[in-house]
Amino acid sequence: MYKKQIKYNEVILMNIYVIGAGAMGSLFAAKLAHAGLAINLVDEWKTQIEAVRSNGIHGQIGENSITAKPPVYLPHEAQEPADLMILFVKSMQLEHYLQKVRHLIKPNTAVICLLNGLGHEMILEKYLPRENIFLGITIWAAGLDRPGVFHSSPTGNIELQNLVDSAEAKHKAHDLVDLLNRGDLNAVYSENVKFSIWRKACVNGTSNTLCTLLETNVAGLNNSEHHQKILRPIVEEFATAAKLSGVDLDAANILQYLDKVFHNPALMHHYPSMYQDLIKNHRPTEIDYLNGAVAKILQAHGMAAPVCQLLTDLIHAKEDLLIIK
Amino acid sequence: MYKKQIKYNEVILMNIYVIGAGAMGSLFAAKLAHAGLAINLVDEWKTQIEAVRSNGIHGQIGENSITAKPPVYLPHEAQEPADLMILFVKSMQLEHYLQKVRHLIKPNTAVICLLNGLGHEMILEKYLPRENIFLGITIWAAGLDRPGVFHSSPTGNIELQNLVDSAEAKHKAHDLVDLLNRGDLNAVYSENVKFSIWRKACVNGTSNTLCTLLETNVAGLNNSEHHQKILRPIVEEFATAAKLSGVDLDAANILQYLDKVFHNPALMHHYPSMYQDLIKNHRPTEIDYLNGAVAKILQAHGMAAPVCQLLTDLIHAKEDLLIIK
Repeated sequence: MYKKQIKYNEVILMNIYVIGAGAMGSLFAAKLAHAGLAINLVDEWKTQIEAVRSNGIHGQIGENSITAKPPVYLPHEAQEPADLMILFVKSMQLEHYLQKVRHLIKPNTAVICLLNGLGHEMILEKYLPRENIFLGITIWAAGLDRPGVFHSSPTGNIELQNLVDSAEAKHKAHDLVDLLNRGDLNAVYSENVKFSIWRKACVNGTSNTLCTLLETNVAGLNNSEHHQKILRPIVEEFATAAKLSGVDLDAANILQYLDKVFHNPALMHHYPSMYQDLIKNHRPTEIDYLNGAVAKILQAHGMAAPVCQLLTDLIHAKEDLLIIK
Repeated sequence: MYKKQIKYNEVILMNIYVIGAGAMGSLFAAKLAHAGLAINLVDEWKTQIEAVRSNGIHGQIGENSITAKPPVYLPHEAQEPADLMILFVKSMQLEHYLQKVRHLIKPNTAVICLLNGLGHEMILEKYLPRENIFLGITIWAAGLDRPGVFHSSPTGNIELQNLVDSAEAKHKAHDLVDLLNRGDLNAVYSENVKFSIWRKACVNGTSNTLCTLLETNVAGLNNSEHHQKILRPIVEEFATAAKLSGVDLDAANILQYLDKVFHNPALMHHYPSMYQDLIKNHRPTEIDYLNGAVAKILQAHGMAAPVCQLLTDLIHAKEDLLIIK
């Protein structure tokens, strides 16, 4: 039986940073602050910092509203070393932010990374020991209405696991699951979070990428008789890269899973985050952490990923066209 | 020395059909009719037929204008067997039109096919013997302003060659070059027209396809730092398919050639024909005769063309999204 490692007081006394004060960071910060935990927000986005400093965070979580007023800092303003960091920056900002907050990292600082996409652990490992890294995925979803104000799905969940396979790391992962659940975040310990991460990357590396390239939503993709033909080679490259990364992903199973996900009425009519980033807001995408990461993994093993590489390059070309640099 | 095969009177007496009364068909019909040749137009587009029947063809060729009033028919209305057919239909309509005009084809009917793209000879071979097929490319370019009225580039040229490598077919090709030149069409006999066809297909299979997918012009492509990275694998698949088709296409040379073409000021700011078809006019594209043809050739040899196949499928998905079926 798993034995609790940290006591109530220890959790209350932990100094926790949520890095990234966007919609998801605000949701997690508000829920955990409400549970009485010592939450600090860090971001470089000054408008958001000023809004939260003046008026706190306001959130609409389904039918319920929440308000919290955690301390919020620019990276260099934060000084108290971190017991725990929860990361909610964009994938392409991850390394930049880790550099900016590395003065907060102690030898035993734990990091929870729930970011979409692949390859984050390679970046995290440069800044802290593997036994302090905890990876997961979440289906909590949130959007920012204006600075300081977010809305989110009424419920969600989190799967979390230790990166290093040791009893100690596993106990720590369980402690972090408990900690997240004090904020009612529905966390569970996962025995195979890497599979979940890869499977979710397959969803995003198909729906996000294709909807952005074709400027449609998932329903639009579904309507094209060609979309099944397009999905297969993408998923096959993901499966090969997963195998090389020690994760067993069966392409045929994933295609069936995608078919189910793509026909989920809640998702179908939604424009994926990459579409929102690039087409709506003319911001860079996370393509390098999806199809781009798959191409890199295959290339590192002397193999080609022509489909994922082409999709990555096409999205980057579209970024070049749409983003005023 | 090449000896002329057909005399003036023979040419004048030849019954020539221009199949496809769009912009290019109208240009060729008008120029050849002006030279005194017996030109007939065939199309299924009734508005165009009525306009030409009532008012003839009017064209602006650079600074000069031209008017002609050739007979124009629906396919089933045309009855006089053809000595020569010049094809100016869309690639994907080629087989349909050949079926519609097969009653005009005699054992010695010659066909000139100057269509962009690959694989037309496979379709033509089903309807007439290989020795009567003459392939080429043209840089004449034309657009339709309204039914019966076209404009075209002030000048252009044609390369033409026999499909079958025999002295007789070569002589016939030379005769056809002479015939086209009676209409001042600047035709030349080419010793390696297949190379020219493939090289032009590389231009169209990159610029047309990518500009359509990314909704930009060639200047927009050039501006993206990623476009070189995208071009290489496309051209490599074209080169492999060309080799399998008996045409020696060096990928590195073609990439240099594309670089020159893509920086031609006359072309750069132009939106390619596939963009015009799909994005502007919501019409199907010729993708199956460009990247799609390359994918088919490689697949027929048990090889994969992941890049050309993906581009083909993406364009088809975009057709599904944009064309109201």
